[in-house]
Amino acid sequence: MTLCGWVESKRDHGGAVFIDLRDRYGLTQVVVGPPEAEASLIDEAGRIPTESVILIKGKVADRLEGKTNDKLDTGDIEVRTEHLEILNTCATPPFTPSQSDLPGEDLRLKYRFLDLRRKEMQQGLMMRSKIIKTMRDFFAEHDFIDVETPILGRSTPEGARDYLVPSRVHAGKFYALPQSPQLYKQILMVAGFDRYVQLAKCFRDEDLRADRQPEFTQLDLEMSFVDADDVMGLIDGLVARTAKEVLGKEVKTPLPRMTYDEAMCRYGHDAPDLRFDMEIVNVTSVAAKTEFRVFRGTADAGNFVRGLNVKDAATKYSRRQIDDLTNYVKEFGAKGLAWFRVEEDGTLWSPISKNLDEAHLAEIKELMKGEPGDLLMFLADTWEVTCKGLYALRKRLGAELKLYSPDQLDCSWITEFPMFEKDEETGNWSAMHHPFTAPLARDLNKLDEDPAACRAQAYDLVINGSEAGGGTIRIHDSTTQSKVFELLGIDEATAEDRFGFLLNALRYGAPPHGGIALGVDRWVMLLAGLDNIREVIAFPKTQKAADLMTEAPGDVDTDQLTELHLRTVGIKKD
Amino acid sequence: MTLCGWVESKRDHGGAVFIDLRDRYGLTQVVVGPPEAEASLIDEAGRIPTESVILIKGKVADRLEGKTNDKLDTGDIEVRTEHLEILNTCATPPFTPSQSDLPGEDLRLKYRFLDLRRKEMQQGLMMRSKIIKTMRDFFAEHDFIDVETPILGRSTPEGARDYLVPSRVHAGKFYALPQSPQLYKQILMVAGFDRYVQLAKCFRDEDLRADRQPEFTQLDLEMSFVDADDVMGLIDGLVARTAKEVLGKEVKTPLPRMTYDEAMCRYGHDAPDLRFDMEIVNVTSVAAKTEFRVFRGTADAGNFVRGLNVKDAATKYSRRQIDDLTNYVKEFGAKGLAWFRVEEDGTLWSPISKNLDEAHLAEIKELMKGEPGDLLMFLADTWEVTCKGLYALRKRLGAELKLYSPDQLDCSWITEFPMFEKDEETGNWSAMHHPFTAPLARDLNKLDEDPAACRAQAYDLVINGSEAGGGTIRIHDSTTQSKVFELLGIDEATAEDRFGFLLNALRYGAPPHGGIALGVDRWVMLLAGLDNIREVIAFPKTQKAADLMTEAPGDVDTDQLTELHLRTVGIKKD
Repeated sequence: MTLCGWVESKRDHGGAVFIDLRDRYGLTQVVVGPPEAEASLIDEAGRIPTESVILIKGKVADRLEGKTNDKLDTGDIEVRTEHLEILNTCATPPFTPSQSDLPGEDLRLKYRFLDLRRKEMQQGLMMRSKIIKTMRDFFAEHDFIDVETPILGRSTPEGARDYLVPSRVHAGKFYALPQSPQLYKQILMVAGFDRYVQLAKCFRDEDLRADRQPEFTQLDLEMSFVDADDVMGLIDGLVARTAKEVLGKEVKTPLPRMTYDEAMCRYGHDAPDLRFDMEIVNVTSVAAKTEFRVFRGTADAGNFVRGLNVKDAATKYSRRQIDDLTNYVKEFGAKGLAWFRVEEDGTLWSPISKNLDEAHLAEIKELMKGEPGDLLMFLADTWEVTCKGLYALRKRLGAELKLYSPDQLDCSWITEFPMFEKDEETGNWSAMHHPFTAPLARDLNKLDEDPAACRAQAYDLVINGSEAGGGTIRIHDSTTQSKVFELLGIDEATAEDRFGFLLNALRYGAPPHGGIALGVDRWVMLLAGLDNIREVIAFPKTQKAADLMTEAPGDVDTDQLTELHLRTVGIKKD
Repeated sequence: MTLCGWVESKRDHGGAVFIDLRDRYGLTQVVVGPPEAEASLIDEAGRIPTESVILIKGKVADRLEGKTNDKLDTGDIEVRTEHLEILNTCATPPFTPSQSDLPGEDLRLKYRFLDLRRKEMQQGLMMRSKIIKTMRDFFAEHDFIDVETPILGRSTPEGARDYLVPSRVHAGKFYALPQSPQLYKQILMVAGFDRYVQLAKCFRDEDLRADRQPEFTQLDLEMSFVDADDVMGLIDGLVARTAKEVLGKEVKTPLPRMTYDEAMCRYGHDAPDLRFDMEIVNVTSVAAKTEFRVFRGTADAGNFVRGLNVKDAATKYSRRQIDDLTNYVKEFGAKGLAWFRVEEDGTLWSPISKNLDEAHLAEIKELMKGEPGDLLMFLADTWEVTCKGLYALRKRLGAELKLYSPDQLDCSWITEFPMFEKDEETGNWSAMHHPFTAPLARDLNKLDEDPAACRAQAYDLVINGSEAGGGTIRIHDSTTQSKVFELLGIDEATAEDRFGFLLNALRYGAPPHGGIALGVDRWVMLLAGLDNIREVIAFPKTQKAADLMTEAPGDVDTDQLTELHLRTVGIKKD
């Protein structure tokens, strides 16, 4: 047989050279020794630098008893070399893919071609390829048409910041890289394509968080003549199929659904982690009756006392650790953290318990379903702060107490999001999803009467507490679209200027339609059980949006800028 | 049954309304009439504007005898409507997708959502989707890994003009949109991925020709441990599979191969149309012996007399038409066109035949395999001009004389291209493919001795006379790579600056590797038998790189430019 690959490691033993030869499929033990190999060849093999590329020809043989390696697929065999060719030698690399003490990420990104040789990276990218293929097969079977939409598009000052591309031909004008193919996919529905899908590259020039990249991939789809149930039902099938084919896991469908309001009540967030319980409980009604100033005052002000029952945790958290959690919730705007231990005798104990009647304590315990050994924690604040603080606290406790196993996969839908959010400072409404989202049919009249109460035909897919995708049914008539623009403070002239072609399209026979976009990078990360998005992207950017390998972005010639009718301004020289 | 779709046309007949209802799958005849429909519904149906979107429920019935329509899949049936709902009415459109006298392309591009409703456009894009799926399936079966490479990359002043993207975070620096993922895919091979494939978006800011777009899609692949035969053999399989699955056509493999030199001799071009014969014949050896000044002078100057035998065309081209062809070849630098008719008696006749001996005429006829009724045409000029002129002439004659049928599919390989081209003005060498192309092993020494004679491990796929893809085996050792850079006048510092990461990668264990890129837009165009690339792209740009629907490129706010550290200069106000 002939094998080509990289010399991962080698050792001399008993007059032979043993090479761990690595290729995409794994490691194979190659022996260069007598009687197959002559002394000169053994000698040469001994001098090959690690990470060099070699070709060998030889015979497959069983390894000697006691020399097998259970960790490798090929651990029972070895290849006894008859011929060896060095295809390329490797200079001393800054690190080797097999070393256990890896250098920092910056060095690995600079030498990405070495870092990508690591088993974890190879497996991650192969899983990504498989997930993408599974998605494509699924949609092809469901009669979707794969349509490519442009990368060089039009800038719309909505949403995040655009990446701009100056035009040479049209002096002073700019293309923008798409934040999503939203308008194009709606146009495709108006054009009668019925079912569209694309793995689309999207771009946002935002300051990056750990799990964001300036360019990212989105599984983007749109369907005509459907409602929210149809879209969610389809994606249920995709989730089950992907989990099955990629991870060998069964996911029960239909996936559970929960309204936005319910999610906020029970978990304080629209992307709750449902791998574990510990729901938020509202005890404001009892708090209002107590003499305890903090509780009573909160209730009187129309705010909320809500808490978590951390089961069996009374002895797991010391006073100092609880102080630590108190400081943690303060990061989210809370003023403090009230807590009670449920004692063996069933009573609640806490530094503040003396401020509360026994009857009220008993009521609280009952609402919280407290049992001996439980730790009850409360925030007394506005609805928003109790949501944010308890969501963060629950997330932290879930991880600290290992309330779920890392290979658990929980997928569910959050539905009926609010149409609009109010900017607290300016009092302006903004669209919670995007300005093309249709309101629930039963809320149509609220567009005029009570925008805050108006709910959208919107749905988010949540996997393990992360938003893994979101979609909406779109507005398909220009009257409703104009009304929504008006509410959002986008006047007619501005709307025509920015979205004129979409408004136009709605006038010429637009079908009812809706769709969804799934974050592919996020999906791969979640399915692979990783927490760094750069591990599932072959050539990622740093959090400063730089590619350390190619050194992009880079300098360009002045001539190039002149051709683009541009000059840089206000640049400080290094 | 329930049907949703667009009202393509309607007519009143015998108290009923007949609607041609269009969806992605075609047309269905819908009847709104008694007894199923009440008078009010029939009335309503009669008032629906064409291109409105409706939903109907009804029963499928056979059409009356004599009322069937063979042109439609659904031509034998009609749907008798019981319920009809207007989902959206259509304003009077600027044109309808079914009208036979379509308006100009500009109006159609502006109202792309209407233009895309045309049957031809729907079929073209569905074929595109199918071709792409076939490609992806093929490569998945062949164990390729689909890897996405970045769109925000680094500008390299090689090749065509880059589209630039200013960086906000890194003041004064720019990303560039990729002209191809060339360097990334080589890095993937160095990283050990063995077989990579991607449908990659590529960008070139060039002045556009009819079949070019500023952004285009390329099927991009790379393989390790392969030679040119391996790559061509794989693509042979892809071509056969695609032709079979998409067109139902058998393509015999292996596809024929011809060296670049042979193609230039026989067809004057490296992408010859092999759907018909009419090869170029070199008659310089005879020309050198004649007394005819033009022929003799050309031969004496070391130039060439080469011609085409246009079979059976002697009576098909009048003197005036031949004058026309003469003017045509002059566009390609020729000074004139010599021609002879082969008469019934086998002699050659021409206004210039009196200048040539009968013996020489007979020799020419023999070389040209002239038979009575043939028309022989010659150019006497440099090698380059005879190639260009005869290539163009052959192409024109092939089309005019209908020497091939439009549904013929001819695929073949052109191999062993020159490594370098010499700029006639500056005397500088440039890379014919790109500077990472490996020379043929047997020509390695010519890098130093005779670069003009050095042939590359390069191969182009030609379909029906169009380049449908091209690839090379790459240089995998840094010594050869440095030598090639040197020949191309790229000094060490420049090479390090532009391609440092690739040169670096070559030092750390690069395997032998090669690949190919296929132009997907072009493939779809060729397979669909179309000649306008904008018909196989959902949202194309005009030849001025504008999107007439979204009006991209557009204006941006000054604030956006300020954030990007840019100012426009030298813009004339409209």
